[in-house]
Amino acid sequence: MREVAIVSAGMTPFGELWETSLRDLFVQAAREALENAQVSQIDGIYIGNMSGGQFVGQEHLGPLMADHLGMTGVPAARVESACASGGVALRTAFFEVASGASDLVLATGVEKMNDGADVTNVLATAADQETEVYHGVTFPGLYAMIAHAHMHAHGTTFEDLSAVSVKSHYHGARNPRAQFRMEVTLEQVMNSSMVAEPLRLLHCSPVTDGAAAVLLCPLERAAEFTDKPIKIRGSGLATGSLALADRPDPAFLDSVSLSTSRAFDMAGVSTADIDVAEVHDCFSIAELCVLEAMGFAKPGGAAELTQAGETKLGGKIPINTSGGLKSKGHPVGATGIAQAVEILEQLRGEAGKRQVKNATIGLAQNMGGSGASSVVHVFERV
Amino acid sequence: MREVAIVSAGMTPFGELWETSLRDLFVQAAREALENAQVSQIDGIYIGNMSGGQFVGQEHLGPLMADHLGMTGVPAARVESACASGGVALRTAFFEVASGASDLVLATGVEKMNDGADVTNVLATAADQETEVYHGVTFPGLYAMIAHAHMHAHGTTFEDLSAVSVKSHYHGARNPRAQFRMEVTLEQVMNSSMVAEPLRLLHCSPVTDGAAAVLLCPLERAAEFTDKPIKIRGSGLATGSLALADRPDPAFLDSVSLSTSRAFDMAGVSTADIDVAEVHDCFSIAELCVLEAMGFAKPGGAAELTQAGETKLGGKIPINTSGGLKSKGHPVGATGIAQAVEILEQLRGEAGKRQVKNATIGLAQNMGGSGASSVVHVFERV
Repeated sequence: MREVAIVSAGMTPFGELWETSLRDLFVQAAREALENAQVSQIDGIYIGNMSGGQFVGQEHLGPLMADHLGMTGVPAARVESACASGGVALRTAFFEVASGASDLVLATGVEKMNDGADVTNVLATAADQETEVYHGVTFPGLYAMIAHAHMHAHGTTFEDLSAVSVKSHYHGARNPRAQFRMEVTLEQVMNSSMVAEPLRLLHCSPVTDGAAAVLLCPLERAAEFTDKPIKIRGSGLATGSLALADRPDPAFLDSVSLSTSRAFDMAGVSTADIDVAEVHDCFSIAELCVLEAMGFAKPGGAAELTQAGETKLGGKIPINTSGGLKSKGHPVGATGIAQAVEILEQLRGEAGKRQVKNATIGLAQNMGGSGASSVVHVFERV
Repeated sequence: MREVAIVSAGMTPFGELWETSLRDLFVQAAREALENAQVSQIDGIYIGNMSGGQFVGQEHLGPLMADHLGMTGVPAARVESACASGGVALRTAFFEVASGASDLVLATGVEKMNDGADVTNVLATAADQETEVYHGVTFPGLYAMIAHAHMHAHGTTFEDLSAVSVKSHYHGARNPRAQFRMEVTLEQVMNSSMVAEPLRLLHCSPVTDGAAAVLLCPLERAAEFTDKPIKIRGSGLATGSLALADRPDPAFLDSVSLSTSRAFDMAGVSTADIDVAEVHDCFSIAELCVLEAMGFAKPGGAAELTQAGETKLGGKIPINTSGGLKSKGHPVGATGIAQAVEILEQLRGEAGKRQVKNATIGLAQNMGGSGASSVVHVFERV
């Protein structure tokens, strides 16, 4: 395999962007990535998108987006793995460049969720239609069940869940592109509206529009486009049972554990080597489960790590310095790429008030559904 | 790049399979491919699928399918480029194996169209939502406009269009897995019900359920799994304007021409080297346009080629020996993989009554929408 680098990035602000269409979101992020690398010709585009078809009646994003970017003809296709679509788009772009078939490939993610669609029902199509959705369950309900399983198994408390949100908003308040750029108190989180017991509004990521893009090329050509390339050291993808009821332990995310070991094996690193990480906190309970499945804490240990401030800026392993899905926002198909953008900025030392000192190795963990798919990438400043 | 081979295939019958769900279709095809290669462990799965979300309320097919195949944990993700989804799934699997990241990767396609969804409207989401679909156009309408443009530019006749369907059904009658296994006469085609002038029912591919799968591995390992490997010599993907109105010449498919030259360049072949081809005949006019854009005939020349019997079994370049989308059926996301299955059987000499003598090099051309995306693969018996 050829070594592969990310040489530039682009990203829209995240939020309720009623004035901006799906295609315009994409073009804004993609153009920024191309301009930052001063590139006008590329070999391919992958687009992470969960459900253009259901959200805005538009499948077939490959040609649409290439065309609107002014690059008609360029190979372009969409990849989907629910909320992990962005991470999988990065992975497919990585393999295309690593194979030697292409040099310059844009990995992107985009989602337009605020456009009149019944968002909760569209998102539910990422769960098992026949054994879950048909019976009425939605994602807040599924993650509420995961939270209860975690509380039951490990004594995790409502305060523990809430501390995750407080930390995320502390970071997000320092991110100019975050949807909710304000801090929240533990009391605000604990008293916010009930969504699905025990999850309240401030334990849940919002409904977001946005797009993000990163440009990949062979590491040996990176200097043509930037003096701060970031190498992709490892990529791991894993699936788990789609239906929560089919899993041995609903509080432990097998796919996250497996995708992490695959990415770590390829990269030749372990958790101790990671300086900064973006992980998939679609609900606060997800962040705790992910940190445990990845090995940053033992099962049941992530709450303590969080309460001790170790996942906050200045802590041992800062998690979701972008604000995470909770505060930065979660345009589902774009999230995996936005995570890579945050790690890129951290490793380049360009994260401003969110900067983790001397960050050299970082990772992004992006998850689909209630954790049925997970994709992990390890990045390194070179 | 490592050289890559297809070592086995599986495919469901195509048709209105009311008793078989999306997941069961997938498992049937995937299991057949694995059993044919006597393989029980693989490194990855790509699933070509246009719209599980809109057809049956199911996105996130990666984990669902891996799980139902009894392979929970295996990396799996969906790729989408409308009706070219299968071809793009093959391409991403090809790059993953070529890169050296994985050895055994299953490239699959599946679509469940007969399950109560409003099929015409779902398919229309592959066209440009803002400039085409919003105004009421559907795919029969778009291809009818292409047909008129072609008739106007080249004097193509209604008989020419109809001759394509007669040829396709002649082939499909000899394919045990085809949806419509009967021959039709020119009169039957010309007198079938009007759909969108000039296209009548027998100029249009049907609504189909089905799945197909092929197993890829490095060429150097192929002998472990088969004594009849087929090498993937080239892959080309191209986009064109999504909206028909944005194209310089609606009767000429730029994306097909571009994807063909890319695949031919990688393979080091030209049309003269091709012994058998599966091309994307979603409507009979599409087959004529594709043959011209690929260089099998000059613009306006494909009708003569067809009328002279050169695209029929025994002709100079047999096209769509499977029966094509018209007679074999068109489960949109599965089509690109089913084309590869047909070429595999042809190059192995296992196509029975449809066998092209001494076929050594074959190709599959798979197209999305009204030709806004096209993916071409060149295969060779080794």
